[in-house]
Amino acid sequence: MLVVMQSGASKDQIEHVLKAIAAQGLTAHPLPGATRTAIGITGNTGAVDSRSFEVLEGVKECIRVTKPFKLASREMHPTDTKIEFPQTTVGPGHFTMIAGPCSVENEAMIQQTAEFLMGIGVKMLRAGAFKPRTSPYSFQGMGKEGLEILKRVRKNTGIGIVTELMDTENADIVEEAADIIQIGTRNMQNFALLKRVGLARKPVLLKRGMSATLEEWLMSAEYVMAGGNYQVILCERGVRTFSDHSRNTLDLSVIPPCKSLSHLPIFVDPSHGTGKRPYVPPMALAALAAGADGLLIEIHPDPDKAMSDGAQSLNFAAFSKLIDSLKMLAGPLGRTLN
Amino acid sequence: MLVVMQSGASKDQIEHVLKAIAAQGLTAHPLPGATRTAIGITGNTGAVDSRSFEVLEGVKECIRVTKPFKLASREMHPTDTKIEFPQTTVGPGHFTMIAGPCSVENEAMIQQTAEFLMGIGVKMLRAGAFKPRTSPYSFQGMGKEGLEILKRVRKNTGIGIVTELMDTENADIVEEAADIIQIGTRNMQNFALLKRVGLARKPVLLKRGMSATLEEWLMSAEYVMAGGNYQVILCERGVRTFSDHSRNTLDLSVIPPCKSLSHLPIFVDPSHGTGKRPYVPPMALAALAAGADGLLIEIHPDPDKAMSDGAQSLNFAAFSKLIDSLKMLAGPLGRTLN
Amino acid sequence: MLVVMQSGASKDQIEHVLKAIAAQGLTAHPLPGATRTAIGITGNTGAVDSRSFEVLEGVKECIRVTKPFKLASREMHPTDTKIEFPQTTVGPGHFTMIAGPCSVENEAMIQQTAEFLMGIGVKMLRAGAFKPRTSPYSFQGMGKEGLEILKRVRKNTGIGIVTELMDTENADIVEEAADIIQIGTRNMQNFALLKRVGLARKPVLLKRGMSATLEEWLMSAEYVMAGGNYQVILCERGVRTFSDHSRNTLDLSVIPPCKSLSHLPIFVDPSHGTGKRPYVPPMALAALAAGADGLLIEIHPDPDKAMSDGAQSLNFAAFSKLIDSLKMLAGPLGRTLN
Amino acid sequence: MLVVMQSGASKDQIEHVLKAIAAQGLTAHPLPGATRTAIGITGNTGAVDSRSFEVLEGVKECIRVTKPFKLASREMHPTDTKIEFPQTTVGPGHFTMIAGPCSVENEAMIQQTAEFLMGIGVKMLRAGAFKPRTSPYSFQGMGKEGLEILKRVRKNTGIGIVTELMDTENADIVEEAADIIQIGTRNMQNFALLKRVGLARKPVLLKRGMSATLEEWLMSAEYVMAGGNYQVILCERGVRTFSDHSRNTLDLSVIPPCKSLSHLPIFVDPSHGTGKRPYVPPMALAALAAGADGLLIEIHPDPDKAMSDGAQSLNFAAFSKLIDSLKMLAGPLGRTLN
Repeated sequence: MLVVMQSGASKDQIEHVLKAIAAQGLTAHPLPGATRTAIGITGNTGAVDSRSFEVLEGVKECIRVTKPFKLASREMHPTDTKIEFPQTTVGPGHFTMIAGPCSVENEAMIQQTAEFLMGIGVKMLRAGAFKPRTSPYSFQGMGKEGLEILKRVRKNTGIGIVTELMDTENADIVEEAADIIQIGTRNMQNFALLKRVGLARKPVLLKRGMSATLEEWLMSAEYVMAGGNYQVILCERGVRTFSDHSRNTLDLSVIPPCKSLSHLPIFVDPSHGTGKRPYVPPMALAALAAGADGLLIEIHPDPDKAMSDGAQSLNFAAFSKLIDSLKMLAGPLGRTLN
Repeated sequence: MLVVMQSGASKDQIEHVLKAIAAQGLTAHPLPGATRTAIGITGNTGAVDSRSFEVLEGVKECIRVTKPFKLASREMHPTDTKIEFPQTTVGPGHFTMIAGPCSVENEAMIQQTAEFLMGIGVKMLRAGAFKPRTSPYSFQGMGKEGLEILKRVRKNTGIGIVTELMDTENADIVEEAADIIQIGTRNMQNFALLKRVGLARKPVLLKRGMSATLEEWLMSAEYVMAGGNYQVILCERGVRTFSDHSRNTLDLSVIPPCKSLSHLPIFVDPSHGTGKRPYVPPMALAALAAGADGLLIEIHPDPDKAMSDGAQSLNFAAFSKLIDSLKMLAGPLGRTLN
Repeated sequence: MLVVMQSGASKDQIEHVLKAIAAQGLTAHPLPGATRTAIGITGNTGAVDSRSFEVLEGVKECIRVTKPFKLASREMHPTDTKIEFPQTTVGPGHFTMIAGPCSVENEAMIQQTAEFLMGIGVKMLRAGAFKPRTSPYSFQGMGKEGLEILKRVRKNTGIGIVTELMDTENADIVEEAADIIQIGTRNMQNFALLKRVGLARKPVLLKRGMSATLEEWLMSAEYVMAGGNYQVILCERGVRTFSDHSRNTLDLSVIPPCKSLSHLPIFVDPSHGTGKRPYVPPMALAALAAGADGLLIEIHPDPDKAMSDGAQSLNFAAFSKLIDSLKMLAGPLGRTLN
Repeated sequence: MLVVMQSGASKDQIEHVLKAIAAQGLTAHPLPGATRTAIGITGNTGAVDSRSFEVLEGVKECIRVTKPFKLASREMHPTDTKIEFPQTTVGPGHFTMIAGPCSVENEAMIQQTAEFLMGIGVKMLRAGAFKPRTSPYSFQGMGKEGLEILKRVRKNTGIGIVTELMDTENADIVEEAADIIQIGTRNMQNFALLKRVGLARKPVLLKRGMSATLEEWLMSAEYVMAGGNYQVILCERGVRTFSDHSRNTLDLSVIPPCKSLSHLPIFVDPSHGTGKRPYVPPMALAALAAGADGLLIEIHPDPDKAMSDGAQSLNFAAFSKLIDSLKMLAGPLGRTLN
């Protein structure tokens, strides 16, 4: 249910509606817009009687939302979500780069990568301290020590940090270290984790599950938003199909329907999507052209010596070249690369 | 690496090898067999030098294991795993039934179902107290209250309990309530959860992920076993494909290669696999014929009133009829239904 | 549209309805049943006015058929289709074996295989004279010479012949040589070929396309039946998914919904479905238990020397053993192996 | 096997090598390049002895080709294939548009569409006279009459014609009417048809099969090329996956590996790929950015009245707007739109 306030509704009137919603044991989500405020209602197991809100002062109308996702739906929030960071912006008009190594390997390489990125105008660094690995015997990441490195590099360079949270136990320390908390593909339906980051005060980058439909993906975003954290960035990273020419099948075709159903920004990770270095730049350009809001790219000072995923990492020179190509297309497409 | 002891090796000799393994910072997994003991070694990031163990007394040979999974592999543990419960047995020669409602709805229906099952010789009841639901607004299960119900019904009837664990927070109470801890399909690669149940003293039923390859599935079993819990039961429950004639595509064809690669028992869940009641019995019979070790079947006293998954639940009469059909085939196939 | 005649309707009354249908430019398909005759109507591009037939004498009622397939649907033809051959029967109560090498390699091996099969009571031999091969440089089959061999062996031994037709050019000679014309998986939607075999006087075994839904498959059967050839046998042979433990993913789960939607017999080809010899027998048993009407199995006097698909072919001893296992299960399932 | 001639090899020397290849019962495919000629050898079932050619005059070296496709491989033909038409060019530096309705509905609409296209600089019209339809009861195309319409419109306007061939029976008349013969997705492995168009003197547009791997697709191109027709254009049109947000999953990620393995041009059909009008323009732009050589787009003077596939057809205004957007990106990407 969506309660749409009149365009001149007062703060008191809005406050009164919020209380009326709470009084029925429901959760109110105020969604301020350019001309008016709308209030999403969740928490109902059955149907909500719209008449009890329509009679309140300042209420224009009540709209039943039929999609199973509500807070994530464009119906409820028609304008694209914009997320502001001290360093950069995610949202309409922008095309935002996030780059870095698969995992934190040591402080020197993270510092070196951050300096390189800031030097070419990329303000967000990705690097995993906790790594989801198929095998229990593979390198599992540097853990807390890795987070400390990320915090120091952020302090030194001013770069924003994107890093993965794998379990609720480490939620506090990852939330502290991260500017964006990444939820990995294997955890897209780890509902305990989604509920936890719904309480976080940092934006969440939610990777699509390996065989998740668009609706399931948006329902997982809904889990986060239902907790009160509306800053969700979706990230397509390749799905699993019969196709064997790349590691996964990067599904750029999900971008237009996603934009149509939801107001949330959508990023693309062509590194995991293709799994092979030479395929990353063309798919990065295609993601921009298809309407994505940004990219997540694996780079490494020396990809052939990377502790994980070296085959899909670009070196600095290749990444600089890609940035140049992206800038060339961003202009005609009405987007600013940042 | 697998250290194979001589058939007459003494306890002291075995103990000595275990210490030598630990001294190198590696983890030893003693695997007692009918005629000799083998000792699996894990925890090595690089290659292990076999010569340091071959020279020890009582050691017959050291075998390099090439599969990425070790403890789960048939190479390391040639005989089928057998798991004994007070009520029943899982493993070679047996075909073990687990049945019950999707979720604990109230005590009466669990008690009723348990009495029905014990009455027809089925000794394991499945029911979820914590439910993974795609939507944050759907019924999420009765939680701790549901576990209390399961514990009381177990005490009243003697039936064994299979119930799902969704997060590490509730691991202790689920482990206490369960005879078998179920890990759901969406958590097959929730590595924090796998590590936690690796420390549990109860067997784990590990459902296959929606688009997991056989190797990834066995690697997830390996996560549990690497923690020291060797009692893992695999459960096929349908994978995600283009096919739309059923909810998922039940992949019975995974059974023979799974039996060839691993010694772990494999169950089949035709209820989730097909999603439609009339398709459950034929797929249940086919699972038995294909070589599965048991079934997980959704039943409900009144399926049309079930709070979740009613469309795929059998009523008691249909389940009794299925049991009769299974018994008819189990004999010729050299299996005992229990 | 289905015109259902009264149970005592006379031949004249039926004839009269057939003429009335033809008079509207539509095609009538008389479907004689145990107690009454029904007449399927196809050829309409828009809706047909049922009232023009309901007023005719002997007509009980007119039923609108909503499925896109009509002649293939159980709605239109409630009883299972039975196909009688001089040697054997396909249909309810039977479980019919078809076996033989992938391709005709020479006369001796076909004669040897036919004698072996007749000796153990298998009355249908499969072998390809024309082979669909992914590469233009691979062995493409013996062609017409292969058909001559099949005809001679049929004459010598009395065995029925199942062989593939790949193009309309060779339709006449394949139809002459075959007791069952096989349409391969890559030609499931070769509509020119389907129309041609719709005119044939021999039953058609229609393999499921590599990524065909059940509805598309039944629509292809409908193409054949719309031409007047109602003797269609469906054959599941594995579909294409992400799964990599076998050559294809044998989809036994299609059997129950297929039986529910259609009256046509459905066979299973576990040889192509799994691609690996040791997986064939368990999947064959599972197909029987799941409700299939028969099997298509690759066997070869010396599988390791086969010109194609040796890895998935059973030798004679392994096949004999499988027949014994199948017989053991067929009895309890109320089926006769033939 | 690839025989590479010296850069100054004479015509006589080349002729001599061709004869030597033929003398061994093999097929020679001369591939003239900018600086030297190479000669592909096919038709060998086993290994070919390279020494018999290396000793001939003018031969530089013999290279063993390990990919199962040879003529389609970049190894054998390093420079991108260029196909020249009277009206337009397909190949490096170009981005070539093909547009038109799903099927020929009448002469007026084809004439109107052709005039519109020529007016905005698009020189190739697509329209089907023979339509592959899932149902035998759906509109199957205007057939020969449709071809006559296409021929007259070509004569009137000078536009090139792309039209589908579905069976060998109509090969002659389609070849006569078409500038490019289209082979549809369901016929990608209709080997009889591939062999027939291998003998045609018109370029072939080969759509990817619904679940074809890149290798299988290139092997089908190889079938055409092995017949002597080297003018093959590949066309990605969406593959079948679990994903349900669009009709098919348009696999743009196949473009970079295809370019790496093969010299053949690759087009994209975002109309069939997405199945929904609003998704066509973003995916068209993405295809250009990903490195495709052209597009196949469905347009219709009045999409909502189209006899087939209206939901995925653009009207003329939307298509003109798309052309403008494509031109804006083509420049920076070093491509000329034609």
